[in-house]
Amino acid sequence: MLGELLDNVRRRHPLVHNITNYVTVNDCANILLACGASPIMADDLGEAEEITALCAGLNINIGTLNARTIPAMLAAGKKANQLGHPAVLDPVGAGASKLRTDTALRLIDQVRFSVIRGNISEIKTLALGGGSTQGVDASVGDAVTEGSLEEAVRFAKGFAQKTGAVIAITGAIDIVADGERAFCIFNGHPMMSGVTGTGCQLSAMTAAYAAANPDRPLEAAAAAVCAMGVCGQLAHQRLSELDGNASYRNYIIDAAYHLDGAALERHASYKTL
Amino acid sequence: MLGELLDNVRRRHPLVHNITNYVTVNDCANILLACGASPIMADDLGEAEEITALCAGLNINIGTLNARTIPAMLAAGKKANQLGHPAVLDPVGAGASKLRTDTALRLIDQVRFSVIRGNISEIKTLALGGGSTQGVDASVGDAVTEGSLEEAVRFAKGFAQKTGAVIAITGAIDIVADGERAFCIFNGHPMMSGVTGTGCQLSAMTAAYAAANPDRPLEAAAAAVCAMGVCGQLAHQRLSELDGNASYRNYIIDAAYHLDGAALERHASYKTL
Amino acid sequence: MLGELLDNVRRRHPLVHNITNYVTVNDCANILLACGASPIMADDLGEAEEITALCAGLNINIGTLNARTIPAMLAAGKKANQLGHPAVLDPVGAGASKLRTDTALRLIDQVRFSVIRGNISEIKTLALGGGSTQGVDASVGDAVTEGSLEEAVRFAKGFAQKTGAVIAITGAIDIVADGERAFCIFNGHPMMSGVTGTGCQLSAMTAAYAAANPDRPLEAAAAAVCAMGVCGQLAHQRLSELDGNASYRNYIIDAAYHLDGAALERHASYKTL
Repeated sequence: MLGELLDNVRRRHPLVHNITNYVTVNDCANILLACGASPIMADDLGEAEEITALCAGLNINIGTLNARTIPAMLAAGKKANQLGHPAVLDPVGAGASKLRTDTALRLIDQVRFSVIRGNISEIKTLALGGGSTQGVDASVGDAVTEGSLEEAVRFAKGFAQKTGAVIAITGAIDIVADGERAFCIFNGHPMMSGVTGTGCQLSAMTAAYAAANPDRPLEAAAAAVCAMGVCGQLAHQRLSELDGNASYRNYIIDAAYHLDGAALERHASYKTL
Repeated sequence: MLGELLDNVRRRHPLVHNITNYVTVNDCANILLACGASPIMADDLGEAEEITALCAGLNINIGTLNARTIPAMLAAGKKANQLGHPAVLDPVGAGASKLRTDTALRLIDQVRFSVIRGNISEIKTLALGGGSTQGVDASVGDAVTEGSLEEAVRFAKGFAQKTGAVIAITGAIDIVADGERAFCIFNGHPMMSGVTGTGCQLSAMTAAYAAANPDRPLEAAAAAVCAMGVCGQLAHQRLSELDGNASYRNYIIDAAYHLDGAALERHASYKTL
Repeated sequence: MLGELLDNVRRRHPLVHNITNYVTVNDCANILLACGASPIMADDLGEAEEITALCAGLNINIGTLNARTIPAMLAAGKKANQLGHPAVLDPVGAGASKLRTDTALRLIDQVRFSVIRGNISEIKTLALGGGSTQGVDASVGDAVTEGSLEEAVRFAKGFAQKTGAVIAITGAIDIVADGERAFCIFNGHPMMSGVTGTGCQLSAMTAAYAAANPDRPLEAAAAAVCAMGVCGQLAHQRLSELDGNASYRNYIIDAAYHLDGAALERHASYKTL
């Protein structure tokens, strides 16, 4: 079932507007191309709305937010809402500073997101309207495990109901939920956390999947999360003895380049709750 | 003939000032090093002119332009003109927003560029003084093909006469023209459009070639365009079954690292019109 | 001896705040992950101090400084000082423009750095309170060689005494000195200068080593410089015929991913003066 959502990306080639951090932006662009979408990056208020209007989807990532780009994020988000284009929020580091937390909260207050994707710590920060996160990685104590899965799903569904967005919480086990249903996804590999920006890349891909499947945000987000995890698994199998996180980074994007709907279907590992 | 232009880059090691987008800037720096040049990036008005004066060539790319960097682009361009240093413009996404179109038009109005390099859609936008482009890729209907080649060459020569710049239009077939002569270049590989920033890298390399061959902007631009295409071809031959666009990106820069004048001569495929 | 300093990084996983240039920032993040640390990038004054407070170390790199980020650098540096967290300065291109020289001088005037790392030209610029540098690479005439080593060590120790910082001058031979002792380091490979950002990566790693070994800044910096050089050597051995600077870049980070204290110990090549 999830395979056709990727096939739609490859068939429709959605153009995705990214207002994203400069750390991982190149990887976001290349993984969008890898999955059949096209990237455009534009973060100045002087063109943000116009670029959003030209695109089929919007990806907002606050990883290196600043006073100049925050207004562009808000304007682009509102324009996407006006036009009915799906918008994705990646609240990188929410909880790590007041600026990040407040900006993420303003964004979800003023913009209706189709998908909000973060680690458990970032998403909890937003749900609590504050809180603390250890930098950009999920606090260990908050990791979603088999034991805490049901509780985490309940939390995700609740926050989805509150925001109207699909909530994607990624970690050892990923949860993708709207107010009613949740996908618990077992794809991925621990070494992915040794590559900067695998989360950012996933958010960019999620925007592409949502843009190519505008009526199915839950499945689109679940398919993107599965796809990223599958790429992490396939790339890991390819590692030779001397390869480390830099080669792994390349292999993950390479895997996304070759992944099609049938392969995604075959490798996707999830249950619904 | 074109080989010696690359040999001059490797012999003279021009320092190139880049005001370029943050999406592909790392690749621009590495391809400049690969071809024997040195990169410096500086986009603040407080140092733009000074850095331009220190360098042998200037590369302006509007891919992530903003209110802070536009004045730096204008100041750097004027300084390059004062000093007689070659300047290259890459009008990324001209036509996609008013800000991009207006900025590109201001730049060509206030700065004499040695070379303007873009896809057919971006260059047409500038020639028309407006128009529309589909994001950062050439509109398909505008692709330069064998059938439309003569018309496209006429257009490029006309715009070269108007601006005094060498016009480089890259796509399936590349055209590099001044007011009198044109190179039609058949190097390259379609998969290059699956890697973000191959155009940006080409513009940076063009600035290096122009800086190392200041009296021959047409041949310099043609040699750079051939070189990029040859690297795309050589890199493609190297792809293994699992390699995708991320590995291809690396192989293209690797190929530029090994390319010398003799190899460029051997692989260059073009005719003049 | 130096091996245990890396082992401490792998055991303590320091979170490092980077205010660094957008050219090489992705590589800085990946090499921090490779050596066992965690990166966070935050360059807005609205959050700089808060992020610094959250981290164990700070890395300031002026490679693409601008009017917006300079105040964030100063604020973050002062906050690190207040909290007793080690701070590293990479004065990229000091001497290439007044803005860079003045900013670097303001930073060392207002912030106590644990380590200042640059090429000989940049460090001389700071020591002289001005001067000139050829872009971002050391002027050739200033290269540290066997013949000029003792003089360079004297200079480094003197500047270390004056600033209270460990001075790391990297080049063909690297010097790492406090006011009393100096490590002269023979690791590294000339091809490293063909990859953009190996210096930036080293500065980021140095902040991680200093953060994980807060009472031993001299050894921490020396270990980081040795480690980067060893990675350059190991990566070079891995190059195949078609590999160029892009593959080399990946292999260097891959080597950092696999390097442990024992391997660092085995490959480190230095003498103390």
